[in-house]
Amino acid sequence: MPNTAATTTSRTATDLAALRALVKDDMSRVNALIVEQSQSDIPLISELASHLIAAGGKRLRPCLTIAAAQLCGYQGDRHVRLAASVEFIHTATLLHDDVVDDSHLRRGEATANALWGNKSSVLVGDFLFSRAFQLMVADGSLEVLKVLSDASAIISTGEVHQLTVSHDLAITQETYERVIAAKTAALFAAACEIGPIVSGNLHWRCTLRGYGHALGMAFQLADDALDYMADEATLGKAIGDDFRDGKVTLPVLLAYAQGDAAERAFWEAALEDFDDAKLVQAKALLKKHRSCEATIKRAEVFVAEAMALLQPFPDSPAKDAMIEAAEFACARAY
Amino acid sequence: MPNTAATTTSRTATDLAALRALVKDDMSRVNALIVEQSQSDIPLISELASHLIAAGGKRLRPCLTIAAAQLCGYQGDRHVRLAASVEFIHTATLLHDDVVDDSHLRRGEATANALWGNKSSVLVGDFLFSRAFQLMVADGSLEVLKVLSDASAIISTGEVHQLTVSHDLAITQETYERVIAAKTAALFAAACEIGPIVSGNLHWRCTLRGYGHALGMAFQLADDALDYMADEATLGKAIGDDFRDGKVTLPVLLAYAQGDAAERAFWEAALEDFDDAKLVQAKALLKKHRSCEATIKRAEVFVAEAMALLQPFPDSPAKDAMIEAAEFACARAY
Repeated sequence: MPNTAATTTSRTATDLAALRALVKDDMSRVNALIVEQSQSDIPLISELASHLIAAGGKRLRPCLTIAAAQLCGYQGDRHVRLAASVEFIHTATLLHDDVVDDSHLRRGEATANALWGNKSSVLVGDFLFSRAFQLMVADGSLEVLKVLSDASAIISTGEVHQLTVSHDLAITQETYERVIAAKTAALFAAACEIGPIVSGNLHWRCTLRGYGHALGMAFQLADDALDYMADEATLGKAIGDDFRDGKVTLPVLLAYAQGDAAERAFWEAALEDFDDAKLVQAKALLKKHRSCEATIKRAEVFVAEAMALLQPFPDSPAKDAMIEAAEFACARAY
Repeated sequence: MPNTAATTTSRTATDLAALRALVKDDMSRVNALIVEQSQSDIPLISELASHLIAAGGKRLRPCLTIAAAQLCGYQGDRHVRLAASVEFIHTATLLHDDVVDDSHLRRGEATANALWGNKSSVLVGDFLFSRAFQLMVADGSLEVLKVLSDASAIISTGEVHQLTVSHDLAITQETYERVIAAKTAALFAAACEIGPIVSGNLHWRCTLRGYGHALGMAFQLADDALDYMADEATLGKAIGDDFRDGKVTLPVLLAYAQGDAAERAFWEAALEDFDDAKLVQAKALLKKHRSCEATIKRAEVFVAEAMALLQPFPDSPAKDAMIEAAEFACARAY
């Protein structure tokens, strides 16, 4: 019985309890399939894939595929395989992103790259990416194949775009949002769009794609704020990673825009030549201009958009869980 | 009018004139599509892709897709798009292989990696790989999607396998051949299998897949011999690249197996710590044991297998061209 009150009163989700409960059974099948499909007779592939699987992560994207399918009343099995496919694409991009960013901590674990080297990360990423397509082919929907191959092309375009504007303090907020829409929100959108496709409720495709996009934007904006706010212990990745990599994210863009000449000179120099003292100063400037708070505010606009898109759906545990996921995007920042 | 004499008399193909002539019109459409589909509104993607396109290469795999379709009497358009898809997968693996091998010359040009860096090579490779799947989705054949997603998974498995056995002189010839079957022959096989699929001649699938596999094995074996035999000017890549990278290929395996204790000690040390003097000595040892010649002999076994598989086809310019391609695999080594 759906809890109507829960969908209409204001709450703050600080974890994903409702989503986790909703998708628990399906996700245990997704996880089993991920383990099974990560195996290979080449031990390095299985080892590296197991390392990633053990590290776990939130598995948010496949959870969204499951929740979106349930929201559309789907009763079949196809969403399980496709959710695994979505997670494989995500894991492949993480592996390739590790090569790119030379980050040393992700999900609280040493990265695959740090442990196995660049070469393995690239090639095992390719393996998982191919596996994702094999799973989609086994499912047999050209619609799903289109949605996820389009998303993959957009993600890589976004990653290259991010690379070309790194260290560039002259980019606009619009450019920054275009980058995160491609590198992050595209896969959230695709993950959610699979629900209406498998359930045959094609009239919900645009709505749930929009929900996924807005949710992805909110998550990435909040992540970019958290990169300067959280403890390493809480966030599970090294604080200041973006700063270290010379990534110009919204908090930095906002602080740069509001800074005086000396502050702007600091940012210009700091993004080229990182050290720990500069990170301390960067955090002080972000605090002065309340740039992380402003970034979270922008994330909240997308949260509201995601919630509004769920409005037309009748109340259900799936709807509750997806509302909670939207709230969680920003709530975890406090 | 097919030239029957040409298919039965013994010739030596030192270029690919018959194949080039056969596929000329279709390949100009493939090349135009490759240029069009490499474009992106992110300039770095278009630049890097244009660099790869300008470098050109033999485009052997898409030529084989075209030739195999013609051999099966195909009259439609689908092979053009799918040939471009095959070339994109190949280019993506080259880009990712550049990251892996740190090679500085490929196709006679500075590699994308040397010019744009690791990050760009990984991400633009991902972009081209995604584009390949978008082209397949636009074609709409789940059979083709299966063939090429399977091939992609096998290629990455082969690349990881190669990585795990690099510097390992204890591997058998069988292991070496398993690696090249996966990293090279799988895409040749898939490229050829597309011909019978698009033409609806499904009874030829297994035969043409076998032809592609044998041809791919022959090309890779000959390449591995050429890496120690050719001039840089002729081969268009730096001689001794495999040696520099610590890749244990068949010529080295054979020389190692036939070497005395001192020679074996040389190979063990040389693969760990390369210098130019060692390459000179390596070439002398390969010459002493005629290891490159023995590798070419092994390639010729696969050439014969490829030719035998073409036997049941009625004579045609396509059959001539595919026989020529098989002969060329080894002929270019002399």
